[in-house]
Amino acid sequence: MKGCGRKVLSTGGGGFLGQKLAAALRANPSIAGTPVSGLILADLAAPPPMDASFSVECVAADIGDAVAVNQLFSDAPDVIYHLAAVVSGAAEADFDLGMRVNLAGTMNVLEAARTAGNLPIVIFASSVAAHGGEAPDVVPDGVELNPQSSYGTQKAIGEKLLQDYSRKGFVDGRGVRLPTVTIRPGVANAAASSFMSSIFRDTMQGKSANCPVSKGFKVWHSAPRTIVANLLLAAEVRAEAFGFNRCINLPGRTDTIGEMIAAMTYVSGPAAEARITWQSDPIVEAVVSGWRSEFTPTKALGMGFIADNSFEDTVRWFLEDDIVSK
Amino acid sequence: MKGCGRKVLSTGGGGFLGQKLAAALRANPSIAGTPVSGLILADLAAPPPMDASFSVECVAADIGDAVAVNQLFSDAPDVIYHLAAVVSGAAEADFDLGMRVNLAGTMNVLEAARTAGNLPIVIFASSVAAHGGEAPDVVPDGVELNPQSSYGTQKAIGEKLLQDYSRKGFVDGRGVRLPTVTIRPGVANAAASSFMSSIFRDTMQGKSANCPVSKGFKVWHSAPRTIVANLLLAAEVRAEAFGFNRCINLPGRTDTIGEMIAAMTYVSGPAAEARITWQSDPIVEAVVSGWRSEFTPTKALGMGFIADNSFEDTVRWFLEDDIVSK
Repeated sequence: MKGCGRKVLSTGGGGFLGQKLAAALRANPSIAGTPVSGLILADLAAPPPMDASFSVECVAADIGDAVAVNQLFSDAPDVIYHLAAVVSGAAEADFDLGMRVNLAGTMNVLEAARTAGNLPIVIFASSVAAHGGEAPDVVPDGVELNPQSSYGTQKAIGEKLLQDYSRKGFVDGRGVRLPTVTIRPGVANAAASSFMSSIFRDTMQGKSANCPVSKGFKVWHSAPRTIVANLLLAAEVRAEAFGFNRCINLPGRTDTIGEMIAAMTYVSGPAAEARITWQSDPIVEAVVSGWRSEFTPTKALGMGFIADNSFEDTVRWFLEDDIVSK
Repeated sequence: MKGCGRKVLSTGGGGFLGQKLAAALRANPSIAGTPVSGLILADLAAPPPMDASFSVECVAADIGDAVAVNQLFSDAPDVIYHLAAVVSGAAEADFDLGMRVNLAGTMNVLEAARTAGNLPIVIFASSVAAHGGEAPDVVPDGVELNPQSSYGTQKAIGEKLLQDYSRKGFVDGRGVRLPTVTIRPGVANAAASSFMSSIFRDTMQGKSANCPVSKGFKVWHSAPRTIVANLLLAAEVRAEAFGFNRCINLPGRTDTIGEMIAAMTYVSGPAAEARITWQSDPIVEAVVSGWRSEFTPTKALGMGFIADNSFEDTVRWFLEDDIVSK
């Protein structure tokens, strides 16, 4: 993995975002005009092998283990995507696991990046869950992070660390608060937001899925394609564009669950909606109703980050990327 | 230290705030109407012995050492004042030391309080330094913490942890962002704000002191007496009064250095001002100009927290509490 190209490391590289990011780099193997010369995909279980024009290593590594994380940095990657996390529901159910993976894991990544000494770009996937509590209903930039979940808290702390490591010149950090990413491929998981994908993904594939909130529930969301585009842009924007704060609210869309279902019906027909069940779930509702559903991400829009134009696009892209092509 | 009274633990108990807080508890040994039955003053060096109507233990403990912190909690204190910290200038000069004491130390205190299992009140001394960067010039409640120092970052992270430990029901946390506390007794230290006390404290006692910023420099400040009153109140207010956010901007006063000097001259005569030297110090100025000097702490005022009426009061209290009485 020597040479003049960019060496990329992705934690959570086996997750759906890590996999889509890797596929995007394979399709267009350059970052800010410099070729990608190597990619390390790290995850708790080694991600599946991948062919590309650059070298790809798929590595099993526990992000909560400082020694394992240091090994990922042995070749001093230039661009780190730190996507690894215990999801919201799991971090709420097991506080210590969330602290270990989401907080200590992020500290391990930042320390390893600092120790590598090459001032790497570190893109940190924060979350809409970092906002909540006393935040206004519509969240402009500059609002105090008042998360009402351990996952959101751990992401908020990761942001503060990323900011200070950047200010100190240890890393070139870029923190992006992801909207709920939907439609997520794969299977249901312990994220409180899991239903926001399954009620589309599973029902369009002939299976039933439960929606634990009402049709009027508003979601701040972004399609996987759009998130990947924003993650790639996050490595390309000038550091100076972030000013005093390396962490931003990414653009997204606000739609109600009902509007999103109508978009699915418009694109794929009425069969899917009929497969949605409507059992309320107070635990899930407590977590997701603590998140904000409307933002005015002025800074990110000014930097060139993008949002979807419609949920119809999201449905079409899901069918193209995650069903038809597989 | 058995019985029905409140067992109090103070980290940083040998510092000037810890000592003043202990003296206040000695003078009025009750919290929210319940007698204080015991006090542990912990610091890196054991604080000086103190006589009181309740038992006082003065203990040497490194807050960065989890085992040492756990020992402080062996008798499950009911009220913890977590005041221990590496000051701003030192945390900026030695990043790892600040991370160890200010971040890992706070994590140790919160974990020990959680493990004790008695849902203790934890009062965390955060700082004006937690605000900065993209914050507006006049800071209302609810502004994103965007600290521009490692000290401020570590305090901001401590706040997030305190909030989540409280939300989870592990502790009953109350985080208070202290304005610059002036006039601080003792000697100059590595706090970037050290001069904000020494130009009054030292010059009124016949010594010279340097002011590294101009007379027009604005300071958000509070007298030690007022801070102690607010720290005591922080243990007494109802937890529910904090709502979704356990961390608040304390009230303070905004005055320029010139206005503060004029107040000193009004109270103590013109000799002191003549002992101030005016050598600029870009390093100190960089840190302190990253802090905000004006706040509208609406929430804290509504909860009964107080500010000084004048810096003349501060000068008088300093002469009464820290010179005449010693």
